[in-house]
Amino acid sequence: MANNRFDVAVVGGGPAGLSAVITGRIRNKEIGLFEHLDFSQKLQKAHIVDNYPGIPQVSGKGLIQQFASHALAHGPALIKEKVLNIFPGDEFFTLLTAGNTYEAKTVILATGVVSTLLFNGERDFLGRGVSYCATCDGRMFEGKDVAVISYTTEGENEAGFLGEICRNVYYLPQYKGDFSKMRAEVKVLDAKPKAIFGDAQVEKLVTDKEELKVHGVFILRQSDPVENILPGLELDGEVIKVNRDMSTSIPGVFAAGDCTGKPWQVAKATGEGLMAMLSAISYLGSKRDSKPE
Amino acid sequence: MANNRFDVAVVGGGPAGLSAVITGRIRNKEIGLFEHLDFSQKLQKAHIVDNYPGIPQVSGKGLIQQFASHALAHGPALIKEKVLNIFPGDEFFTLLTAGNTYEAKTVILATGVVSTLLFNGERDFLGRGVSYCATCDGRMFEGKDVAVISYTTEGENEAGFLGEICRNVYYLPQYKGDFSKMRAEVKVLDAKPKAIFGDAQVEKLVTDKEELKVHGVFILRQSDPVENILPGLELDGEVIKVNRDMSTSIPGVFAAGDCTGKPWQVAKATGEGLMAMLSAISYLGSKRDSKPE
Repeated sequence: MANNRFDVAVVGGGPAGLSAVITGRIRNKEIGLFEHLDFSQKLQKAHIVDNYPGIPQVSGKGLIQQFASHALAHGPALIKEKVLNIFPGDEFFTLLTAGNTYEAKTVILATGVVSTLLFNGERDFLGRGVSYCATCDGRMFEGKDVAVISYTTEGENEAGFLGEICRNVYYLPQYKGDFSKMRAEVKVLDAKPKAIFGDAQVEKLVTDKEELKVHGVFILRQSDPVENILPGLELDGEVIKVNRDMSTSIPGVFAAGDCTGKPWQVAKATGEGLMAMLSAISYLGSKRDSKPE
Repeated sequence: MANNRFDVAVVGGGPAGLSAVITGRIRNKEIGLFEHLDFSQKLQKAHIVDNYPGIPQVSGKGLIQQFASHALAHGPALIKEKVLNIFPGDEFFTLLTAGNTYEAKTVILATGVVSTLLFNGERDFLGRGVSYCATCDGRMFEGKDVAVISYTTEGENEAGFLGEICRNVYYLPQYKGDFSKMRAEVKVLDAKPKAIFGDAQVEKLVTDKEELKVHGVFILRQSDPVENILPGLELDGEVIKVNRDMSTSIPGVFAAGDCTGKPWQVAKATGEGLMAMLSAISYLGSKRDSKPE
């Protein structure tokens, strides 16, 4: 289990997370970098970035590649899994992914922004039919009807898995793609989700085209609403509330980058990532100092 | 005078100031960049920087050159003069250098840190014998005795000028150099200043070697104590107190980089420079909106 335990878990591999990793490794900390996609999807879509000092006129894709290769050269543990839940503990935070459990003494959230608002009903029915992980929760819906709303191609595998065990699977991709190779059991719908309704449990998903009677709604975004990953984390509107040293309302948890608010800019993110890591390292030191010998 | 009036005056051309300039010019603002030395002296001394994301294993000198050429390509007005005083006004801040007057609607302080503490007595006698500018204040000491404490080679010219008009000039360089070509009127002393004493006016400078009876003490650092440049600016210990958006206690004045506190790191400085500029631009917009038509 040694490889599953870290000084610092960095959740998200955009500019903020990668900057944190670089400084953390230079300071000789064991770092787990959780990045389930191919680094910042958002930055990759930026045509040209010209205000990151020192690297003029670079494509977003080129810039994130430079960041990633710089960070990976310092040898963090790269974990290509999505963090679904974080639980504080006495000595370690526990991080759950679909298939594994990890531990870390401190956590840096660098999850970016959820670019869409939550759907009506989403928060109310979380755990009562709404789920962010088919691998985790799919079995509860065996023989039942489910909808999968997905913002990434990852959703195709998730829907495929559900197609094996559920009765009806509706797949609502919120991105452009070729869905001709989806399994026959999965019905692809070109529709925009509007709201989730039900009583004790989810009963239907309303879209701009129709009403789907379903027992479960899986929602797969690039990043999940952070308050659902780590309950009790204090927000400031839609973003994580942070102090100047990037500490959050939960001791040992720091945040950096777009998830702490605007401006959504690369240099702001890298600066905050650095700061969050140095604060996490101070926190590690103060915890060690306060331990009995 | 059109070239002496700016939307934003950026005081200091280190990583924070240069980052602010880049974003400000991209947003099409008129920017005056005040940098009297050859960009960040502090960064130039850094052997290797390896935690500025995207540019691994770079010398401090190489990094600041990349920043400077990036920023200057965007065409700010580069003013190679030291800002000695800033006065708030109704519509413009007035910035004084030794020889000129400039105006700006907003100011970003990116002056770095004063690496030495103030001398005992320095603050008490400021304006009563202590000065940061020989060109400005030298005439007050015609025929009198003065000491010049200098941390940069700039001090050699200042001492030379004083040598023409004062009776005795003691030059106390706090750096290594070749002083054999200093004018004969200037007495170079290898000593560390300790404290300034006097009554209504300065009467003597005490060093680790002797007591110098002088009427004036000129102190020339890479950057002056910022609270002396802009009186009333609220500090937090030794650094400028800032909010998350880099605003200071004075409306229209923002700060970024080392002068806002640790960590003294490049990525923190560039991120804050960006943020300060975006906040300054918002401030410009809000002022314009609140004006009568």
